[in-house]
Amino acid sequence: MKLATLAGSGRDGRLAVVNSDLQRAVLASDIAPTLQAALDDWARTKPALAALARELEAGHAKGVEFKAADALAPLPRSYQWVDGSAYVSHVELVRKARGATMPDSFWTDPLVYQGGSDDFLPPAADAPFGSEDWGIDIEGEVAVITDDVPMGTDAATARKHIVLILLVNDWSLRNLVPAELAKGFGFYQSKPATAFSPVAATSDELGGAWKDARVHLPLVVHVNGKELGHPNAGVDMTFDFGQLIAHAAKTRRLGAGSIVGSGTVSNRDRAQGSTCLAERRMLETLDQGKPMTPFLSFGDRVRIEMFDNAGRSIFGAIDQRVVKAT
Amino acid sequence: MKLATLAGSGRDGRLAVVNSDLQRAVLASDIAPTLQAALDDWARTKPALAALARELEAGHAKGVEFKAADALAPLPRSYQWVDGSAYVSHVELVRKARGATMPDSFWTDPLVYQGGSDDFLPPAADAPFGSEDWGIDIEGEVAVITDDVPMGTDAATARKHIVLILLVNDWSLRNLVPAELAKGFGFYQSKPATAFSPVAATSDELGGAWKDARVHLPLVVHVNGKELGHPNAGVDMTFDFGQLIAHAAKTRRLGAGSIVGSGTVSNRDRAQGSTCLAERRMLETLDQGKPMTPFLSFGDRVRIEMFDNAGRSIFGAIDQRVVKAT
Repeated sequence: MKLATLAGSGRDGRLAVVNSDLQRAVLASDIAPTLQAALDDWARTKPALAALARELEAGHAKGVEFKAADALAPLPRSYQWVDGSAYVSHVELVRKARGATMPDSFWTDPLVYQGGSDDFLPPAADAPFGSEDWGIDIEGEVAVITDDVPMGTDAATARKHIVLILLVNDWSLRNLVPAELAKGFGFYQSKPATAFSPVAATSDELGGAWKDARVHLPLVVHVNGKELGHPNAGVDMTFDFGQLIAHAAKTRRLGAGSIVGSGTVSNRDRAQGSTCLAERRMLETLDQGKPMTPFLSFGDRVRIEMFDNAGRSIFGAIDQRVVKAT
Repeated sequence: MKLATLAGSGRDGRLAVVNSDLQRAVLASDIAPTLQAALDDWARTKPALAALARELEAGHAKGVEFKAADALAPLPRSYQWVDGSAYVSHVELVRKARGATMPDSFWTDPLVYQGGSDDFLPPAADAPFGSEDWGIDIEGEVAVITDDVPMGTDAATARKHIVLILLVNDWSLRNLVPAELAKGFGFYQSKPATAFSPVAATSDELGGAWKDARVHLPLVVHVNGKELGHPNAGVDMTFDFGQLIAHAAKTRRLGAGSIVGSGTVSNRDRAQGSTCLAERRMLETLDQGKPMTPFLSFGDRVRIEMFDNAGRSIFGAIDQRVVKAT
C-alpha cells in the first residue's frame, strides 16, 4: 500500500491511496481525512486503506491521475521527527576529515537528534534559504513512520511498530553547524525545514528489499542532473530502524506518526558516491587536501529517488530547487 | 482569556474557555474542537473565544466546574517545542560548578534545543521513569505559544506572534545528560515527556506583569511540599520571548502552535531559591564542596505555580508525582 497527501483546504491536506506504479490516486476521505488521523487509529484504518488500495490496483476504485509533483509531504507536519546517524562509517569519515577520532561507543550506541517537525516541505517545493553563505546542503535518507511505541520497547519489538517507509531530504546548513554544535545543545538553526518523498509505503511494497528493518536498495541522488551517488541503504547501516526506535523510546513513549530517520545514507565503498555534498567534500579533502565541490547555490536542483529491482520509482522523487527566501 | 483542554474521545482533547479565577469552564466546540485547530485559524477564532470568555465571566455562558487536576496539557501534543536557556546567569553557574567557563557569545546569542512534542504530560499526571538512577529532575519554566511566524522575523516583530502564555515542567534526566551531550547532537533521552500548566492565558490576563515580552512574576516551585524557590521570571531573563522566537525563526518558519520555552527560571539573587534541583546542587557544590540535595525518587511530588499580585493562581498548578514506569 502506498499513501500520499494531496493539497486540501486544511494544513494537513487530504489522505489518498496511490497505486503501486504511482499513476493513480483515490481519496481515502471515507476512512480518514488525513494521514495523521489514519495513524492515530491505525488498527482500524490500515485494513480499510489496504482494501481501497486493492480496489484501486484492480481498477475497481475510481481514481484520478496522481501527480507526484503536486503532493504534499505525506505528513505535512508531524508531532515528532527524530533523525538518526545510523551509517557510522560516515560519522567516522566526518571526524577524520576534521582530524578528530570517533569514540568506540558510536558503534554500539545510536546517535540521534530531535528535528523540527512543524513545517515539512512538499517533495517538489522550492527550498528557501536566507543566504548562500549558510553552506546549503542536502542529506539523502530513508525514514520510517511508527504507530504508538511504549516507553522501554526493545529493538526487536520496535520493528513491529514500523508502519510506513519514505524518503527524506534533510536540508542542512553546514556553515551554521560548527558554532551551533559548539554551544552544546545540538542542531537548531542548522537544520531548516525537511522535505519528504511524495509517497509513504508499507514494507510489502519493497518486496525482498525490506529485510532486517533496513531498506536494501540504492538511494539515487542527483545535483543539477548529475549523479552524486547511489549508495545502498541496506549496506553499512550500523543500526537498523528497530534499534533507532528503541533508542528513541528508552525514556519516553513515541506518539503515532513519529518519523524516525536513518541519517545520511553512506557506503564505505566510495564507488557508490555520496548522498550529501559534505561527504563528497570530506573525501576530496582527504584525497586532495581541500574540498572541490561547492555547497548549493540559488537555482540549483537536487533529486532523491529510490527504484525497485524492476526500475520503478517506489516513493516518487524528491525534486527541489534552492531559492532565496523572500 | 484563559484556555484549557479537557479530556475527550480524541488524542487532542476538547478546547474549553476557563474563567479568570479557574472555577468554571465552557466547551468551545462551536468555535474550534481543539486548541491546535483554534491556533490554525487564530484570526477567526481568537475574537470568538474572547467573546465566549466574556460571557462566561459575566455568568451568561453555561459552564461546568473546572477541575484543573483533570485537564490535559493545553496542547496534549504539538508540532514544535523549542526550549531556550534564557537565564544566562544560570548557564554560567552550571559551567562554573563543573569548572568550565562560558563563552561571552552566550550573552548575545540565544541557546535553544529542539524538544520532543509528540507526547506532553497533563499537569497533574504521574511522571513515569524507568530508573531513579537517571537523575530525575524538574525545570520550572515559562513558555509562549505562537501563531505562524515567517522565516527571518526580527525580535520586535516576533513579540506580535505570541498568542498564549503557560507554565512548563521540563523533566530532565541529569545523569543521562553528560554522555548524551558529549556525543554532540544535543538532548534526546535526557529530556523525557514535558508537562504543562492546566491553562494557557493571553497576556492581558497577566496585567502589568507581562512587559517587554517577559513575565514579571515569581515562579513558585515546591518539592514534597517544601519550597525550592520562587525566582521572578522577569528578572535576569537575558533574552525575551521575542528574541527567542526570532532565533528559532532565523532559518525556517514556525508553524502555528509552536511552543517556545524560557529555560529554567533563575535569579542571581540566591535568596530567591531555584526552580530545578540541579541548580540547588550546583550552589551546594560551590558552597560546601558537594551536592547535598538528592535528585527525585519514586513517590516524590513537585508543584510549579505562578500567582498574580492578588495571590490568585494564573495558570493553575503543575502538580506531579514521580513514579516507576510500568
